[in-house]
Amino acid sequence: MNAVANEMEQCIDSCIACYRQCVQTAMHHCLETGGEHVTPHHFRLMMGCSEMCRTAAHTMLVGVENHGVVCGACSVLCADCAASCEGMDGMDDCARACRECAEICGRMAA
Amino acid sequence: MNAVANEMEQCIDSCIACYRQCVQTAMHHCLETGGEHVTPHHFRLMMGCSEMCRTAAHTMLVGVENHGVVCGACSVLCADCAASCEGMDGMDDCARACRECAEICGRMAA
Amino acid sequence: MNAVANEMEQCIDSCIACYRQCVQTAMHHCLETGGEHVTPHHFRLMMGCSEMCRTAAHTMLVGVENHGVVCGACSVLCADCAASCEGMDGMDDCARACRECAEICGRMAA
Amino acid sequence: MNAVANEMEQCIDSCIACYRQCVQTAMHHCLETGGEHVTPHHFRLMMGCSEMCRTAAHTMLVGVENHGVVCGACSVLCADCAASCEGMDGMDDCARACRECAEICGRMAA
Repeated sequence: MNAVANEMEQCIDSCIACYRQCVQTAMHHCLETGGEHVTPHHFRLMMGCSEMCRTAAHTMLVGVENHGVVCGACSVLCADCAASCEGMDGMDDCARACRECAEICGRMAA
Repeated sequence: MNAVANEMEQCIDSCIACYRQCVQTAMHHCLETGGEHVTPHHFRLMMGCSEMCRTAAHTMLVGVENHGVVCGACSVLCADCAASCEGMDGMDDCARACRECAEICGRMAA
Repeated sequence: MNAVANEMEQCIDSCIACYRQCVQTAMHHCLETGGEHVTPHHFRLMMGCSEMCRTAAHTMLVGVENHGVVCGACSVLCADCAASCEGMDGMDDCARACRECAEICGRMAA
Repeated sequence: MNAVANEMEQCIDSCIACYRQCVQTAMHHCLETGGEHVTPHHFRLMMGCSEMCRTAAHTMLVGVENHGVVCGACSVLCADCAASCEGMDGMDDCARACRECAEICGRMAA
């Protein structure tokens, strides 16, 4: 799999990890907890971020030359989602995955 | 469905139309024609563009506030794909769908 | 677009329509209404059904010979989602889209 | 993450691994090699299998009760794709990932 460089593999890993964390947390922790965890603002970010992470990973796997613009958009949604998760009960792992992905995608976008 | 404004509905329609056109053209016309139609550069753009269009539509359906950054990335991949399709045999409909989507997504991104 | 037969085009249309309806309804009507609309059972079905519809459409666009097994799985999730929507406030359009897609996909699966 | 049992986590891992392998192999090895690697039959299976694996993983992450029907459909496409990869130059890793995923998804479907 030497077609894809190391730095990109790490970014793909981070995007897939963030995707899994967001979907699983939203669909289990958030729905089961209710309250602020299912407010439109927060829940839409969880869904938008997970979708974008999955697609940023896909774009890099496909090998699109302009993957940087996709990673850049992903970085923005991850940062938005992290900000929404921070300080919310039981969302620490999700906030951390989003922050990390925002940073790594931000570097790919530069 | 008044939660989603008219301009956004039009952009969602355009993204879904471009997604369908790219997947169907790549998987039927390009694979059956072969030659330049299955070169890595062209085929990756077809796949990257279709994925990004599908996700831009999804992001708007979800109602993510920062959907503009996703539409912006989509506009770039659509323009790249249109440029690759133009002048290639039997790719006029696809080039047109990509150009239109690039333009409409570009306006959402502004 | 004669690569894809008429009956399949209709099934693709139905899958994409059901996908749009489920995502938009879940992310706007359900999240804004709250209560039973955001219970784990109902909301997971909305998300599972929309994803499966999107992928059944994709599988047919790709032209996979065994698309029938994918349409069959889609038909099951659509029927489950329709049953969950029926009788729930403001969910009539969504229930109808799911019932229709369950039936059309069921025919493709046969 | 105790909401998702061990056996399901293993199936999600296998689906994501097979998805990555199929997309990356199709978009790099197959497109760069050409010939039988880009025939419509083979390439459509690579794309259909990868999409279905991604969606089977998603369905389990979402926590849909009837995920078994989705895993069953995934198992069929994975077996089809494995059969197409076997004996084709440089496709051993992909065939193996598909065979493994077909088997694990088949168990979830039972």
